[in-house]
Amino acid sequence: MESMIGIGDYLIEQILAQGVQHVFGVPGDYVLGFFKKMVDSPLQVVNTSDEQGAGFAADAYARLTGLGVVCVTYGVGGLKVVNTTAQAFAEQVPVLVISGAPGTRERVKNQLLHHKSNRFDTQMKIFEQISVATADLSDPDTALLEIDRVIEAVLRYKRPGFIEIPRDMVDYKVARLNKKPGLVKVQSEPETLKEALQETVNKINAAKRPVILMGDECYRFGWHEQSIRFAENTQIPLAVTISGKSAVPETHPLYMGVYAGALGDEAVRDYVETSDCLILVGALLTDVNLGIYSAHLDPSKIIFISNEKITIAHHTYETVTAQDFLQGLLEQEIHPCVFDWKKPVLLSDSYISKTGAKITVQRVFQQINAFLDCNMVVISDVGDALYGAMDLVTCRSAQFLATAYYASLGFAVPASIGAQMSNRDLRPLVLVGDGAFQMTGIELSTAARYNLNPIVVVLNNQGYGTERPILDGPFND
Amino acid sequence: MESMIGIGDYLIEQILAQGVQHVFGVPGDYVLGFFKKMVDSPLQVVNTSDEQGAGFAADAYARLTGLGVVCVTYGVGGLKVVNTTAQAFAEQVPVLVISGAPGTRERVKNQLLHHKSNRFDTQMKIFEQISVATADLSDPDTALLEIDRVIEAVLRYKRPGFIEIPRDMVDYKVARLNKKPGLVKVQSEPETLKEALQETVNKINAAKRPVILMGDECYRFGWHEQSIRFAENTQIPLAVTISGKSAVPETHPLYMGVYAGALGDEAVRDYVETSDCLILVGALLTDVNLGIYSAHLDPSKIIFISNEKITIAHHTYETVTAQDFLQGLLEQEIHPCVFDWKKPVLLSDSYISKTGAKITVQRVFQQINAFLDCNMVVISDVGDALYGAMDLVTCRSAQFLATAYYASLGFAVPASIGAQMSNRDLRPLVLVGDGAFQMTGIELSTAARYNLNPIVVVLNNQGYGTERPILDGPFND
Repeated sequence: MESMIGIGDYLIEQILAQGVQHVFGVPGDYVLGFFKKMVDSPLQVVNTSDEQGAGFAADAYARLTGLGVVCVTYGVGGLKVVNTTAQAFAEQVPVLVISGAPGTRERVKNQLLHHKSNRFDTQMKIFEQISVATADLSDPDTALLEIDRVIEAVLRYKRPGFIEIPRDMVDYKVARLNKKPGLVKVQSEPETLKEALQETVNKINAAKRPVILMGDECYRFGWHEQSIRFAENTQIPLAVTISGKSAVPETHPLYMGVYAGALGDEAVRDYVETSDCLILVGALLTDVNLGIYSAHLDPSKIIFISNEKITIAHHTYETVTAQDFLQGLLEQEIHPCVFDWKKPVLLSDSYISKTGAKITVQRVFQQINAFLDCNMVVISDVGDALYGAMDLVTCRSAQFLATAYYASLGFAVPASIGAQMSNRDLRPLVLVGDGAFQMTGIELSTAARYNLNPIVVVLNNQGYGTERPILDGPFND
Repeated sequence: MESMIGIGDYLIEQILAQGVQHVFGVPGDYVLGFFKKMVDSPLQVVNTSDEQGAGFAADAYARLTGLGVVCVTYGVGGLKVVNTTAQAFAEQVPVLVISGAPGTRERVKNQLLHHKSNRFDTQMKIFEQISVATADLSDPDTALLEIDRVIEAVLRYKRPGFIEIPRDMVDYKVARLNKKPGLVKVQSEPETLKEALQETVNKINAAKRPVILMGDECYRFGWHEQSIRFAENTQIPLAVTISGKSAVPETHPLYMGVYAGALGDEAVRDYVETSDCLILVGALLTDVNLGIYSAHLDPSKIIFISNEKITIAHHTYETVTAQDFLQGLLEQEIHPCVFDWKKPVLLSDSYISKTGAKITVQRVFQQINAFLDCNMVVISDVGDALYGAMDLVTCRSAQFLATAYYASLGFAVPASIGAQMSNRDLRPLVLVGDGAFQMTGIELSTAARYNLNPIVVVLNNQGYGTERPILDGPFND
C-alpha cells in the first residue's frame, strides 16, 4: 500500500533532509498553516522584524551551511524579499524562498483577494527572473516532484529557488513518490579532462611565478580544501578576490592577501598582474573584484576554473567539472614552485591603546583586528566598511561574509542573525556604515529576542561616504 | 532650428509639469547624476532611510496630490520597492518609479557589473509585472516619447509606471519633440450614455431605500465631489468602504458610516444590505471591503460605476466614462429620497479623562477622536489599527489613508512623510501596530531630519494580533 503524506509535511521533510535547522521569516494569514507545521516540526522558526531581514539572514545561513530557507506570506511578504533573492542569485547563494498563497479554491470565486497586486501569478513571474527554479504547488499530482526539482536545482546551481504553496494545499495528502530525491552527480568526459589537465600541468611547469586566485564560487561549491591542498603540494602562493576573502585562512603561510586591482594591496597586485600563470578558482571577474576596472590581467596567462567550464587562455573545456579537475591536479606531477615573496605587514594583531590619541579609521581597524579570534565571523556591509575590512586577518575559512558584488546596503546586521543561528559558538562581528545601519539596524531587536550577541560596529561617516568621491550633493548626507 | 534638451532634464521637466514638488528616494552610484540634476532643479529630493520607506512615502504623496515619484538606484534600489509598487498597482495609486542603470556603453564590455542580479533587463522584467507602462531610456531617438508614454499611462490608469535611465543617458542631448505631451480625454459614446442614464434614473426613482457606497477609486479619479453633489440633490445617503473611508467628509449629514460586512457597524450593514438600489461609486469589492466574505450584496440591485465601465445588475455599458455618467446623473430628474435613518452615535468628539481608569483600546480611540481636527490626516497601518480607526470621524475628504486591500504592513510611518511633504499644513496622525512599526518605524529619523511632526500612536499588542484569531503560535509573538 502506498504511504500518504501532506504536501506541507513533505516540504518540511525535504528541508530537514538537507540539514537545515532554522527557517527565517515573517508570518501572514496565507502562510499561517505552514508556519504552524514548521513550529510543530524540528525546525526552528526565526521571526525577523521585516521580511528583508529574513532574506539577508537566510543568505548568510546558506553561505555557512549550504542551504538557507526564507518563509513569507503572499505578495506583501514575498515581494519584500525580491532584493535579497536577487542578491542570492547574483552571488550564487543557495536560498529557498517559500511563500504562502491564496487557496486554489478561494481563487475561483474571488478575484480581489487581499495581498494580490496584479494577477494571481504575478509573484511567481517576478521570482522566475531571479531563481533557478520555481514551483506553484497548486496541483497535488505533481507537488512532491516539484518540491524535489526546485531543491535539487538550488543545491546544484547554488542559486535561489522559489516555491509557492496555496494555503489549502498545506494539509492536502498525496501518495509518496517511489523515487528517492537526490542530486545526480555530473560526470566529466574522461578524454577532455585528461587533455585539460595535461595542458594545465605544462603551463604551470613552464611558469616562473604562478599564483592561485580564489573567489567566492570556490567556497560556495566546496573547492577550497582541494585548492589549498594543491597550493601546499606545489608551493604556489594563494590570493583571494574581495568576495572570496577568507576562502583560505589568512594566517596560511602561502596566503598573500586580497587582490582587488588598484583598490587592494600594491604588492599583491604587482605579484598577481605580473604572474606568468594565473590560476583563477571560482573567482568571478566582476567590476568590484577587479577594483572598478583598475585591474590589468592578461587573458592568455589565465587558467580559469569555474562551475560551468574550464577556460585556458582563449579556449574552453565544457564537459569537465571543477571538482574532477581540481582532484586531477592533485594527482599530477608538478614541480614545486619557489615562493620567496615577502609578505607585507598588514594589520598588527596587537593593539596598544594610547590615551588622548585620535580615533582614526586605521586605529579602529587595528583594534578590531587585535580583538578577532578564531570563533568570530566578520560580516561586512557595503562601502567603506568593506574596503576597511579587507585588511583584517581571519584565521579560518569562511570567517568573512560580505556582498561584495551585488552590494546591497543593509546586509550585515540581519546576516549576523543567520550566521550565529547556523552555529551558536560563532560570534559575529558586524561592520556597518551609518547608511546601511539605518536600513536594517532594527533587526538588532531580533538578535536580542533570540539571545544572540553580535558585536556591531557602526562606522558613522555622516552619509553615503562611498558616493562622495563619485559625485557629492546633499543627497549623500 | 530644433531646440535640444538632455534626457534627464526632460524627465525632470515633465515631472514638474504635473505639479510634483518632491521626489522620494535613496541615491546610489548608477543614479547619482540624475540625483544631482534633481537637486539643481526646483524638485526637493527627500532621502529616506530605506528604499521601502521612499516607496510608501511616494504612495501617500500620490494619493493626496495625483502623482508620486520614487527615485532609486539599479537593482539594490529598484528591487527594494517592488512591494511598495505592487501595492500601488493593487490600490490604483499613480506612482512613477525612476531607476538608474549601468551606462549603455559600459554594458558592452563588462557583463559582471555590481548591483546586477541576473540579466541587464531583470529589473525591467520584474517591473513589467506590476506597472501599467515601463520604459528603458537606452535609445536616445525614442527616449522623450517613452517618458511621455509612461507618465500618461500612470495618470490615465492611476497605477505605477517604471522608467530606467542608463547613467550615460542622463546628460545625452536630443531634439525636443514637436508634439506637446498631455492626456487625450476619452469620450463617452452619447447613445450608450443616454441609455445607461435612463435605466439608472428609472431604477433610482422606483427604489424606496437607495444608498450610495463610495470606494477608493472614487477619490483617486476625482469623482467624490460629483458623487456628494448627487447625494445632496437627491438626499440619497452615503456610506463608504474601508478603503474608501473619508471619500466623503464624515460629518456630512447624509453620511452613514463605513460598510464592511460583519466587520463594520451593524446598522450601516443592515441599511446597505437591505437597500433596493445600491449605487457603488468606485467601490472595489475586495475581500477586505466585503468584511472577509461576510457581506451579502445582491448583484441585481447594484449600479456599479467604475473606471472601466458602468454595470447595472448583470449587464455592462462599456463605452461610458464614470465622469460623464456622474455628470449626467446631476442633470437628471430624480425624486428626492426621504432619508430618515437615525445615525448611531459612533465616537464622541469630547473626551473626559478619568484618573485611575484603565487604558482600553476604546478609550484610546475616543481620545484620538476628540483630538482630531480638520488639519489632520489619519494614516492607518494594517491590522487592529485599521479596524479601530474605522470609527474615527474625519471632517474633510481624503483625511484618511490606509492600504486596506493590499494590506502591506509598515505603510503608515513612511506614508506620513509623503503626506506631510504634500502639504506642510497637514499634520499626520499615524496609527500603527507593533509588528508594522518594527518594519519601517526607523523612518521617523527621516521625519525628524526634514522637520516633520507626525503624531505616531503605536498600538502594542505584543505580536501580530490580527493573526491570533486565525491561527496562533509563537510565530505571532
